[in-house]
Amino acid sequence: MDALMASREFSFMTDYSACRKRSTDLCSHVEIEDLVVQPTPEVSPIKWHLAHTTWFFEELILAKHLKGYVRYNERYGELFNSYYNALGPHWIQSGRGTQSRPTVSEIIKYRNHVDKCIEILLNTSDINGEVYFLMELGINHEEQHQELMLMDIKYILSRNAVRANYYEGPIPTSKRSIQGWRRFGEGVYFVGNESPEFSFDNENPRHKTYLYPFEISSSLVTNGEYLEFLNSRAYSNPRFWLSLGWEWVQKNQIRNPLYWIRQEGAWLEFTLHGVRPIDLNSPVVHVSYFEADAFARWKDMRLPTEQEFEVFLGSESWPAVECEGTILHPVDPNAVRRQVWCWTKSPYVSYPNFESFQGALEEYNGKFMCNQFVLKGGCFATPEGHYRDSYRNFYLPEQRWIFSGIRLAKDPK
Amino acid sequence: MDALMASREFSFMTDYSACRKRSTDLCSHVEIEDLVVQPTPEVSPIKWHLAHTTWFFEELILAKHLKGYVRYNERYGELFNSYYNALGPHWIQSGRGTQSRPTVSEIIKYRNHVDKCIEILLNTSDINGEVYFLMELGINHEEQHQELMLMDIKYILSRNAVRANYYEGPIPTSKRSIQGWRRFGEGVYFVGNESPEFSFDNENPRHKTYLYPFEISSSLVTNGEYLEFLNSRAYSNPRFWLSLGWEWVQKNQIRNPLYWIRQEGAWLEFTLHGVRPIDLNSPVVHVSYFEADAFARWKDMRLPTEQEFEVFLGSESWPAVECEGTILHPVDPNAVRRQVWCWTKSPYVSYPNFESFQGALEEYNGKFMCNQFVLKGGCFATPEGHYRDSYRNFYLPEQRWIFSGIRLAKDPK
Amino acid sequence: MDALMASREFSFMTDYSACRKRSTDLCSHVEIEDLVVQPTPEVSPIKWHLAHTTWFFEELILAKHLKGYVRYNERYGELFNSYYNALGPHWIQSGRGTQSRPTVSEIIKYRNHVDKCIEILLNTSDINGEVYFLMELGINHEEQHQELMLMDIKYILSRNAVRANYYEGPIPTSKRSIQGWRRFGEGVYFVGNESPEFSFDNENPRHKTYLYPFEISSSLVTNGEYLEFLNSRAYSNPRFWLSLGWEWVQKNQIRNPLYWIRQEGAWLEFTLHGVRPIDLNSPVVHVSYFEADAFARWKDMRLPTEQEFEVFLGSESWPAVECEGTILHPVDPNAVRRQVWCWTKSPYVSYPNFESFQGALEEYNGKFMCNQFVLKGGCFATPEGHYRDSYRNFYLPEQRWIFSGIRLAKDPK
Amino acid sequence: MDALMASREFSFMTDYSACRKRSTDLCSHVEIEDLVVQPTPEVSPIKWHLAHTTWFFEELILAKHLKGYVRYNERYGELFNSYYNALGPHWIQSGRGTQSRPTVSEIIKYRNHVDKCIEILLNTSDINGEVYFLMELGINHEEQHQELMLMDIKYILSRNAVRANYYEGPIPTSKRSIQGWRRFGEGVYFVGNESPEFSFDNENPRHKTYLYPFEISSSLVTNGEYLEFLNSRAYSNPRFWLSLGWEWVQKNQIRNPLYWIRQEGAWLEFTLHGVRPIDLNSPVVHVSYFEADAFARWKDMRLPTEQEFEVFLGSESWPAVECEGTILHPVDPNAVRRQVWCWTKSPYVSYPNFESFQGALEEYNGKFMCNQFVLKGGCFATPEGHYRDSYRNFYLPEQRWIFSGIRLAKDPK
Repeated sequence: MDALMASREFSFMTDYSACRKRSTDLCSHVEIEDLVVQPTPEVSPIKWHLAHTTWFFEELILAKHLKGYVRYNERYGELFNSYYNALGPHWIQSGRGTQSRPTVSEIIKYRNHVDKCIEILLNTSDINGEVYFLMELGINHEEQHQELMLMDIKYILSRNAVRANYYEGPIPTSKRSIQGWRRFGEGVYFVGNESPEFSFDNENPRHKTYLYPFEISSSLVTNGEYLEFLNSRAYSNPRFWLSLGWEWVQKNQIRNPLYWIRQEGAWLEFTLHGVRPIDLNSPVVHVSYFEADAFARWKDMRLPTEQEFEVFLGSESWPAVECEGTILHPVDPNAVRRQVWCWTKSPYVSYPNFESFQGALEEYNGKFMCNQFVLKGGCFATPEGHYRDSYRNFYLPEQRWIFSGIRLAKDPK
Repeated sequence: MDALMASREFSFMTDYSACRKRSTDLCSHVEIEDLVVQPTPEVSPIKWHLAHTTWFFEELILAKHLKGYVRYNERYGELFNSYYNALGPHWIQSGRGTQSRPTVSEIIKYRNHVDKCIEILLNTSDINGEVYFLMELGINHEEQHQELMLMDIKYILSRNAVRANYYEGPIPTSKRSIQGWRRFGEGVYFVGNESPEFSFDNENPRHKTYLYPFEISSSLVTNGEYLEFLNSRAYSNPRFWLSLGWEWVQKNQIRNPLYWIRQEGAWLEFTLHGVRPIDLNSPVVHVSYFEADAFARWKDMRLPTEQEFEVFLGSESWPAVECEGTILHPVDPNAVRRQVWCWTKSPYVSYPNFESFQGALEEYNGKFMCNQFVLKGGCFATPEGHYRDSYRNFYLPEQRWIFSGIRLAKDPK
Repeated sequence: MDALMASREFSFMTDYSACRKRSTDLCSHVEIEDLVVQPTPEVSPIKWHLAHTTWFFEELILAKHLKGYVRYNERYGELFNSYYNALGPHWIQSGRGTQSRPTVSEIIKYRNHVDKCIEILLNTSDINGEVYFLMELGINHEEQHQELMLMDIKYILSRNAVRANYYEGPIPTSKRSIQGWRRFGEGVYFVGNESPEFSFDNENPRHKTYLYPFEISSSLVTNGEYLEFLNSRAYSNPRFWLSLGWEWVQKNQIRNPLYWIRQEGAWLEFTLHGVRPIDLNSPVVHVSYFEADAFARWKDMRLPTEQEFEVFLGSESWPAVECEGTILHPVDPNAVRRQVWCWTKSPYVSYPNFESFQGALEEYNGKFMCNQFVLKGGCFATPEGHYRDSYRNFYLPEQRWIFSGIRLAKDPK
Repeated sequence: MDALMASREFSFMTDYSACRKRSTDLCSHVEIEDLVVQPTPEVSPIKWHLAHTTWFFEELILAKHLKGYVRYNERYGELFNSYYNALGPHWIQSGRGTQSRPTVSEIIKYRNHVDKCIEILLNTSDINGEVYFLMELGINHEEQHQELMLMDIKYILSRNAVRANYYEGPIPTSKRSIQGWRRFGEGVYFVGNESPEFSFDNENPRHKTYLYPFEISSSLVTNGEYLEFLNSRAYSNPRFWLSLGWEWVQKNQIRNPLYWIRQEGAWLEFTLHGVRPIDLNSPVVHVSYFEADAFARWKDMRLPTEQEFEVFLGSESWPAVECEGTILHPVDPNAVRRQVWCWTKSPYVSYPNFESFQGALEEYNGKFMCNQFVLKGGCFATPEGHYRDSYRNFYLPEQRWIFSGIRLAKDPK
């Protein structure tokens, strides 16, 4: 691991700085007011993300490893701790949007201060393996929040009565999906991370699993296909829904994917590029597990398990998704990876012989292994270099402000 | 009434401009972020107040009386209508803080636009009485919101974990209260507005009421007196509380006035000038009706009726409350008026032969005549010239982010 | 007062026994299961009423005045105390329906035990004035609960999917209402109790009040008149509603009086005699204050104040409402009293120089003087002898399982 | 299958009658009032169970297979349908306790009517396989409700302030648990039902699964062991809890298993035999998944997966649990089966190639495969003959009125 560390030593500050810059760059398209509000408890104010990711470096690295470090502001610990009980009390999540202070510019100062101290720390000669690990984790953690920031910005802008676009560039028209099925045989397969590079605890250890024959679609479910489901009045038919899903549909009057808008007989969609008519060939996005599961049942198919999905991913070469310019929306129904996170039918549980990160980081992943479902495959907003086939994303079955879509599976007859 | 109008014609634009300027001036002590958040449903974002008061002039005056006027932005009607059902749908109150747009600077542009159009309208020769009335109402309406803005700013700043002061100047030390009772005899009294100047519909008509002998305190209840109540464990004793009040105390774990802070054995208070030790001689402020009523019962006294209070006010000459510099906190327990709004034991109902404003303005006051209590006497934040002895302020019995206090009454033995 | 007491001494046991018997008689029309359920928090299980009224005699009289009395069951205090904080903890009201024990037959045993002990106490020679007062209060208290029991039984039976009638006899057809207005002049009037007989504290003291000229209808609002209101789509028009009332209408999807049922284009009504078509000439019943107030505004009239109502009552001789057989429904729109409780526009507050009952009984009435409105005139279910013109009934503005109706008033032009 | 059917033909009516009788027998220890109340939404009134199980036979068998059958009461369909959307609307679950009608005696009449018609149907010569299947399902369904009835009766009696025992007999003292670990090696195992007898759809198909080496405790966690957990202040330490579990603990102030009672320094337990001191050697019962999972983490162990549990069960011979007399409480910590349902760490999902029952019965199991965890092993209340090692019980992670306990597992080092 020493050689690895040596090479990392040089690149860390570059990676770190690039990562940190990307977070503030994400805010450059919007106004201060957009960084403050919290329109629903699960969406955090963008300025909170900027501060929380900074606190993560301060609390887990500087406070412990930079000699003599004094925390920037004693109140920030409570405000910007997300949920780590081992690291002290934390502000209630739904109350993040009540805090006008610290202001955005104060948070930027906080970021700069921490960046400077991280640089000092990394320039110290005697950096140990734990710091390297924490730096990698901190960067990966901030990358996770960058995707969250885009999810949250989209939600925040969508709630405004006075509409504003995040990004002005156009979204290219999608090509038609090429329908097809990939078939896999029965047997013992390996799943889980196998790389020596950074990975989260929950992707480990790599292990064997027994799979029965399955087929998985080579394309993502499109808006057009989903519209058929919707037009068949499936949202009014309990038959297709899990019991909790049907309750959710009725209680929240769910009638379509999160950002779809019915206007004068047409379906429009709120995107980070503004409102536009839905593109029937684009992958459907912003559906809940309940909707994905109901769609599959309506099709007389099912969602893949996460193991099946990972086996499928492992069998596909890495396509070069060529994007000219920035496209903040899924457009390619035939892409294997990094378009929309695909719901699997697998509840999020630990792998056999799972060992969580140690200390406070024990709380990073393991304690959420209840009532969540795994999503696989990455999305367009997942930062470059952050994605792995063994990556396990996880959300509650009713959540859909994620960039989530559907890839179907079925049992061969 | 023509002479009156003529004199008004000249002063309207001056009054209007001064009023409008005061609203934006109130925002000069805080940051953009402070103008955006809504930490609790009853508190509105400050930027919403800036826009709503503008919409009031636009919708009630310009849209109807300025020929060819086109509304500034068609979505603003819904966003900035507070509750007038006759004027179209309105955004749910608790959701005002979800709206990052329009931004503060966009709202300032909106204000400037409407100000310019009002000027154009007022310069038109054929202004009728209705416009004069609506202009006076619009100014009075904005003055009401100026007091609300101070209430809301105080609440918003108080909720921040990172404390910020609204105003940096000092609060002078209070003099001791001079205890004494003003006694009034039995008989028929007049109450209600008797001035030809502007007044709200709910202050009218002036009418007779039969009062029994009563005594009313010449001083406001002070922090020191209230502390005795608190120290007697009155918050744990159901005996002093109305049934609904006791439920409220228990459910919300109420233990002290809204902005009191217990710290290392001492009582501090969050004020618009920052946190400071409570001044035992200052009038207690930010108590609910439930607390005011319980305090009175604990004293074996009672709150005055609104009629008694108005009779008392009518018997007192106008003291010149001399303030050097800005003091945004009640300091004088011996003042008769404009320190703290005093809870009365009178539910807010219409006067005999009440006639509400007409048209959409019918909704201004009358429809709130349920489950609210009347407060009298004005407070330090009530804009100069806005106050009248016949003024009837009204709030729900559990509300206490108002600048509310207590003046006691009793029945002579 | 001695003479009075002497006469009472003889009649007390008779009155007491008759009153107690009436409570159990009320249960003879229904099944054990009907006495157990609590379909909504404001409705209590009938068996709870049977026990609570018994506890009242036990706790306030026997425990204090019968030498050596030991409470029947030490757990009953908590279970059957309604809300008297001075008498110890009480079971949460909404949880009364969770208690299957004590069973109905155990409660009957409890009643018999207390009855026997009361008889022993009354046979003691040295009964003092306090016991006489408490006996009268206890009987009046149980009479109040007898009306509540009918309200609650009606609600309980109405909620059953399998309908059951309380009483099988027919309801006679109503005569047409005789429209007319009683006019009263301006001046000082007396209101409040003036009888030496038992009355509640809240009806006292008798006092002067200043009234302006008013007219009050000689008839109650009928189903037919109310139907016009409903057919004018008034339930969809915010204009007629108080702000809180409009919220209530929307949140609860209120579309008609509580027990009206729309069936195949006709309006039926659930009554204690079963479901029947509404009788257009019968007084409308089971409306909330919000509905009564909206109806009056729709008529361009208003509700009377409680003072006006009492003056009106005082001017009307006592009609002999002749009922052949039991009629558990209001049928006479022209009756002055004891058909339906009429909502007044007066919030429930204390009279000038009010003094509440002493000790634990302080909690009987005074602590509810918040957010309730006064109803006057009695209803068909008010026990004979319990009614007085000075009687002040009070309920929350949204409550309507009471036998509540409307008598209109207006200001002479 | 014909031979099987023939033998069934003779025994069906016997099995059916015995099963039906057992349901009403369960009610013989309590009073009518105990059969009516619903103290919390997840607990149904006992009289509802009596009716619902009857409706199941009527709706699924008689209505379809008994020629000319007319439903007993047209309103019962809605009232007693639990959740089958395909079989029409159903009463909201939390509102079952609002229905005083039909009374218990009316429901007994309904049961007798259906029993008679089932007998007529079974005596018909041409019964087909579907009816046989539905009869078996109906009996198994009623057996499930018999366990539920005991769960619900226990909860109902426990909520009474006036305590009542369900059963008067004594509970024998538990023997000490014999600590030990059963070890299983790595490899492919079979799980799922393999019997031709009746089983639920969710236990099928039998299939292979890959397991890593594991050890599973030969004894159940006892009250004594659980008390150590409790005494270590684990309920106040977020470290041991899933995130949702910690929220649940805090929001509901959870401090001990459901029926434990702290009294004068001792721990008592409410049982179906009444309140008694906890027996430290008895299996802990009435813990939630959250508590079971936290206990395991505190022990530095884990819960078994359902596959591991089933493999363990398959390796153990059937012990003859000898009970003299009725014991309605778990007493043997060393029993392998039928003491307490053991939480597994496996979310409830479908098996590979799962096929649900057809038609309306599709809703029997499959639609609950979300946010529930599997429990294995049966409990003392599981009816004789209803239990199988492949049985998959499932509940929400916060539910604990089930007879649920803990069997630990661990990974060999």
